[in-house]
Order: sequence, then C-alpha cells, then structure tokens
Amino acid sequence: MEKVWTDYQAENKQRFLDELLELLRIPSVSAKSEHKQDMIKCAEAIKNRLIEAGADNVKLYETAGHPVVYGEKLIDPSLPTVLVYGHYDVQPPEPLELWNSGPFDPVIKDGKIFARGSCDDKGQMYMHVKAFETMMKTNTLKSNIKFCIEGEEEVGSPNLGTFVREQKALLKSDCVLISDSSMISLETPSLEAGLRGLSYIEVEVTGPNRDLHSGVYGGAVANPITILAKMIASLHDENNHISIPGFYDDVQEASKEERAMLAEAPFDEEEYKTDLGVKELWGDKGYSTIERTGIRPTLELNGIWGGYTGEGAKTVLPSKAYAKISARLVPNQKSDKITDLLIRHIEKIAPPYVTVKASLHHGGEPYVTPIDSKAYQAASKAIEETFGKKPIPQRGGGSIPICSLFEQELGTKVVLMGFGLDSDNLHSPNEKFDLANFYKGIETIPYFHKYFAEM
Amino acid sequence: MEKVWTDYQAENKQRFLDELLELLRIPSVSAKSEHKQDMIKCAEAIKNRLIEAGADNVKLYETAGHPVVYGEKLIDPSLPTVLVYGHYDVQPPEPLELWNSGPFDPVIKDGKIFARGSCDDKGQMYMHVKAFETMMKTNTLKSNIKFCIEGEEEVGSPNLGTFVREQKALLKSDCVLISDSSMISLETPSLEAGLRGLSYIEVEVTGPNRDLHSGVYGGAVANPITILAKMIASLHDENNHISIPGFYDDVQEASKEERAMLAEAPFDEEEYKTDLGVKELWGDKGYSTIERTGIRPTLELNGIWGGYTGEGAKTVLPSKAYAKISARLVPNQKSDKITDLLIRHIEKIAPPYVTVKASLHHGGEPYVTPIDSKAYQAASKAIEETFGKKPIPQRGGGSIPICSLFEQELGTKVVLMGFGLDSDNLHSPNEKFDLANFYKGIETIPYFHKYFAEM
Repeated sequence: MEKVWTDYQAENKQRFLDELLELLRIPSVSAKSEHKQDMIKCAEAIKNRLIEAGADNVKLYETAGHPVVYGEKLIDPSLPTVLVYGHYDVQPPEPLELWNSGPFDPVIKDGKIFARGSCDDKGQMYMHVKAFETMMKTNTLKSNIKFCIEGEEEVGSPNLGTFVREQKALLKSDCVLISDSSMISLETPSLEAGLRGLSYIEVEVTGPNRDLHSGVYGGAVANPITILAKMIASLHDENNHISIPGFYDDVQEASKEERAMLAEAPFDEEEYKTDLGVKELWGDKGYSTIERTGIRPTLELNGIWGGYTGEGAKTVLPSKAYAKISARLVPNQKSDKITDLLIRHIEKIAPPYVTVKASLHHGGEPYVTPIDSKAYQAASKAIEETFGKKPIPQRGGGSIPICSLFEQELGTKVVLMGFGLDSDNLHSPNEKFDLANFYKGIETIPYFHKYFAEM
Repeated sequence: MEKVWTDYQAENKQRFLDELLELLRIPSVSAKSEHKQDMIKCAEAIKNRLIEAGADNVKLYETAGHPVVYGEKLIDPSLPTVLVYGHYDVQPPEPLELWNSGPFDPVIKDGKIFARGSCDDKGQMYMHVKAFETMMKTNTLKSNIKFCIEGEEEVGSPNLGTFVREQKALLKSDCVLISDSSMISLETPSLEAGLRGLSYIEVEVTGPNRDLHSGVYGGAVANPITILAKMIASLHDENNHISIPGFYDDVQEASKEERAMLAEAPFDEEEYKTDLGVKELWGDKGYSTIERTGIRPTLELNGIWGGYTGEGAKTVLPSKAYAKISARLVPNQKSDKITDLLIRHIEKIAPPYVTVKASLHHGGEPYVTPIDSKAYQAASKAIEETFGKKPIPQRGGGSIPICSLFEQELGTKVVLMGFGLDSDNLHSPNEKFDLANFYKGIETIPYFHKYFAEM
C-alpha cells in the first residue's frame, strides 16, 4: 500500500506545491473587513480542490461571519469516521516593513515557503487535502473522512460553535484530526498531548476628554499612558508570577511524573537564547522554559498604543491609551472565568484619575489529549512509520479553542498532529513552512487513517 | 493715532482673515519629509505677504532644514529695533479621525477658526504681519522692525541656532517679540513671565529578535511591552514625584512671594476638571495645579506603541516596543544635562532580558522674562490699552526653546505676548483660534511698538 502512495506523491509533488502557492496568494485575513471577498475566494478555491480530489457533498456553509468549507467521502458506515479540521484564514501580515518578500507573494528559498499562512494553517490544512487525494486516486482510503475548514480561527472562531451545534449529524465522527501545531524537528518528532486555553481582552484607558498640549497641561492631569503602564507593571510580581488575586486558583499542577516526562524532551537553553537573540530568559520563577510554555498559564501584552507614534516628536498628552492583553490557560482554568477575573481586576486597579474599559476579544479552553486514546495512538504510529521514531508527547503553548468545542458538542477526542516548527514565525513577519515538512505531512497522514481504521 | 489703526483694520478685516485661511490651507508639517514642498510654498507665501505689507530685504534664508523667512523695515537707526519671531510650521495633524473638519481645510464656526496652525503659530504670527501692514499703510511705524519666521519650531528648531549665530548683525535688535503662547482669557488678560524648558527622548526596547507567537513563546521570554511598562511605571513615585535620582537637583524653587502671586490668578478647579472631563486631578504632591503647570518640572509620555495595534486580535509577543517621553524643565535645569540624565537612567533600569536604546529628539532651556524689563513693560501697557486691564504675569507650561537662544546669541530679552487660549487644542485635533483673539492681537501689537519706542 505504501508504495502506491509514495509513487503517486512523487509524481504529483510539484503540482501539490503549485496549488498551495495559489492558495497562499489569496490575502484571507479574517480580522479585517476589507478582505471579505478574499475570504470567499479562498473558501471557493478549497471547495474546488476538495471536489477535484474526489470528495462528495462539498459545500460552503454560511455563518454570521466567514463561511465554513465542508466535504466528505463516506465509504462504509461500519468504518470509523475521521473529521479533519483546518482553517483557511490567516493572521494580519503587519508589520509589513519587516517582511523580506510580500506576505501574499509566496517565495521558495532554502527549501522553505515564505508567505503568510504557509504553515498556519493553509500549508498544514492542504496536506490533508493532498493526502486525501492520494488515497482516493490510489483507491486506498480505509476510513470515512469529513472535512471542516473554517475561516475564523485567527479571530477566535466566533461562529464555529453555532455551526457545530447546528450540524451535529453532519459532523458526527470518531475523532477530530487537526494539523495546526508544531513538532520539535524532523529529527525529533513530537505530538501535542495538550494545548493552553486563551483569554484575550482589550483595555482602553481614558484620561482627559481630548488630546492636550503636554506643556500647558503636563504635570496637572493624569497621562493615560503613564497610568496604563503602571497598571500593566502591576500584573506581574518580582518573580514574574501573575499578581492577579485568584488567577492561579484553578490551575491543576502537573504531576512530578509529567514534569519528569517533559524534562526528557531535548532542549538546549543556549541555543534557544541564541535563536531569539536574547541574553537572558524571563519567566515564572521555579519552572523550566518547557514548563513555562506548556503547563504554566501566562499573561502577555500583545499590543499597546497611545499618543503620537509617528515620525519625529509631538508634545501631546493624549486622551487615550490602549492595550491588548491575553492570558494562556492550563487545565482546569476556565476561559470565561479568567476573562471575567481579568476584566474585573483591570477595572478595580484603575485609579480615579482615569476611566478604564476592558472588554473581551475572544477566549478558548485549555485541552488535553490522553496519550492512551485511539486517536493519539494512531497518530503516534503514523509518525513512527514515516519518521522512524516514536514521537515525544508534548504540551503545546498555543491555543486551539475549538478542541474543547468539538469534544463537548460532538463527544469526540481531538488529536493534534502538527508538522510545523517553532521557528516558522507564526503570526510574525516572514512566516515559513519547510517543504520537507509539507511533504512529510502528506506522506504521514494516510497512515493515520489506516491505523485509526484498524484500531 | 489709534483711530487710523482702528479704521484701517476695520476696513481690511475680511481680507486679513482670508489671507490667514490661505496660509492655513498649506500643510506645512515640518516633522514629515513628504511635506518639504509645502514648507517652501508656505515660506514663499509669507515672504510675499511681507513684501506687500511694505517690508524691505525680504528673503528666504536656506538652512540645513526648512528655510527662515526674513524681512525688515528700518526707519531710523536712532530708534529701537523689535525683532518679531514666529513660525510657519505646524504639528502633525494625527489622529485625523478625531477632527470634525479637515486640519488643512479651515472652517469658521462659532467665531473660531478651526485648522492645524490656526493658533500655533500661523494665526498668531500673522497678527504681526497685519499689525505691521497697519502701521505702514497709516504711516505710523515708530520703531524699526525685523521679522524672523522659521519653519522648524515644532521639531525643536534644529537649525535656528546656526542661523542666528551666522546672522547676528542681521538680527541685531533691542528686544524679541513673540506671540506663540496663550493668555487666561479676553476678560482676564495675562502675559508670560516665563516658560518651561524641554528634554524630549525616544526609547526603543527590544526583546526577542523577531515577533513571536505568544502561545508558543509566551511566558518564557521577556515581552518588551511589559518591560517598557515596568520601566515607565518606575519613573514616578506614589506622590507623583519624578523618581529619577538627580532630576530635581538644579530646580530653583519658586519663592514664597512668587507662589503667592501665582495663587492670585483666577482658577476654578471644578471648572478645570469639568472642561477636561476628569473626576480627579493628578500631580506632584504639595503643589497647586497652577504650580504644577508653571513652576514644576514634569515627565510626560507623549506616545507609546508596540505589537499589534490594529483591528481585532493577534496573539503576538512583539520584538519591540517604543515610547516618546518628554520632560518640562524649570529654572535652573539645563536641557542637555536632563536629557543625558534621562537617557542614562532609562538605560540603567533596563533589565538584562532586553536591549534598550534611548535617544534625544530635541530640547530647549527654560526661560524667565523679568517683569521689570522694558519689553515686558511695553507689552503690559499695550495689553492694558486695548483690554482695559493690566495683564496678570504668568509662568507658562509650554516650551519655546529659542528664547534662551536669542538671549544668549543676540543679548536681547524676549517678551512672550501670546493671544491664544489654553482651550485652543494646540497639538491636538480641532485646533482653533478665536477670531476675537486674532483681531485683538492685531489691534494690540502696534501699541507695543509705540510704547517700546517711547521707553
């Protein structure tokens, strides 16, 4: 069976890549309303690729936001069904001036595809489309398969919940397979055994009711930037613990055994620092870097702005200052509860000189995939088959809030078989995806379906 | 003599205004290189207006930046000479979305001219051109007069020093008259007896060498926004004193008498708060609001930015965060010394997780005009003549760094006879200048020349 796959993929290698590049040229930025037409164009393109690969009932499902692409191949009701989830939307490309080539003008350099979405998630999502094509064209599909490719992951999937609840029958499946995360390296494959949750809020601090001249009013009226800075500064203590009362209340501390297992992953702190260009690491005292990015909750500033930010100098005392703040959550923290805690805390510490508004952007629950589940085992075997090594189980730092949505609404476990790398510059300028990882993914996915069907 | 002035001004009232509106339509933003041609256009317009008014030797003097407009009328070497200084450049108009009408599309509403530069300083500078025209056309000029109108005041006059040093003979005069400040109101006229100095710096904090995914790296590497916030938060203590060692060392505390005099100015704290829309005022403990904006040094955040600042949410841990910070200085603080202190302090408090660069934007010295000087006395008498009240001496919060430059290089005292109001939204959206103030200025200025010549 393997040879037919390998042969087919070798013959169609260049076309697989060309088709991906075509998708990457569409600026499907879900956060910006100006890209509404690009979103539809991208969804249509995926619909057409699924039809060409042999899927049935391929259709765009309208939502209150961007459409969901659905397609399926149901070969035998007695066989298990795998629901493949992915997303065709991408993060905004800004800051544009830091890209070495256009974010929507993909370039292949040193064996890597540089473009927004190359890894997150168009490249990884498309591996599934091409793996499906491989199985269809070689007549080797051994499980039922369904595709659910959404367009709002990067803005927190605000409409996926409604879609999933309304389409439970359509999406009925035995596991959900997602490639939207990373592994350590091709030499040291790994598999996500969990992800952090998210609470993302925006804070607006208002001082005076208009921008003022900092000479005329400076010193006599609270500057919202200074106040916002004081508020932000108070959110971490001297040990870099989050100093919001109640924040850690529900954190399920990892067991000694789990921490020992995490410590086994190869990790070179010097290499990590060199790669990031920092002299010293920073983080929650008493925890290792791997623990800080996996099993510990965090509070990060994702953006800040206020006053004059252009070229040159302007002596303004601004009316407003803003920040985007997000917390990563671990089991058993609840996104709603933490969001509420954050908002109430921010409002509480606001001094009387200013008015503060804090509001939710989006959230998602932390998620753990049991390593003894069928889906995890099938993914582990598939990777072992093509990489020659059993993958190391990991706890990822990112968040895919839809994991708990699928579990809750469909009763199915999610397996996160990611083929990206931490160095792929996700959400950053010069996002890339290694060609080797793209092809390795296409090669590995058919084994997942085979092993899952056999379990 | 007065009647010929009043008659002439009444007849030409509308033309004076139309000419000012023409000037306001030129977007002469000195901070932005894209406006280089607009700067020249504006300088040429002023040159032509001076020629039409009857000035001699009118000429644009090139500098390393934007040109200086010079013109003169020397009627008698035995009479005193007044050097009128003003500037034709304006602050950047951003944020544009907060303007009710275009910043360079002047609108008259409720007796006010709304436009960038209407008050600061095109409107006030142009009062001098029209007062000069009045005296020329009515044959009543009683002093020699020179104009020096520069184009770089809003970026810290980087090339005026060289110009003044090279043109000492050209600029030789007995006093420098400037209208680039404000008075309390038309009902309660006031006159600046001093101004604060300025040190304006920009800070760049670099964490990791690229923008990172806040899920993958969050919690393990220092976030430059968080670090910058902690640094900013440390700059003021719980009494809102500036907590930079040495910052207050050279401050010449105001005398009991001066503080008593300042306390005489009419000031209603409730009205001030209502106007600004704040529930509580903020400032240096132990000082009144008038003292905080006049005789006390300040440290203000003029801008901050970093990470994702657009619509929606982006889970980025940014590489860089920036702030624009300025200090207002009082006698005897020195701008260079404080700038150096600020930069060294910022670099010193930077933790080892980040790299910090702090650099000078521009600076200027604090300035005091003795109220017993001839120039101050002439201005006081002129205002009393047209307002019917002796003006209250004030210490202004803003900075006009060129005051000490003129005193140092030309040996002449500067008098700051401003006709703006604190509510004119200088450097802010919807900058305005009351028509009544514009015309009152044109009416008052000839008296200054008359009284100064008689002293």
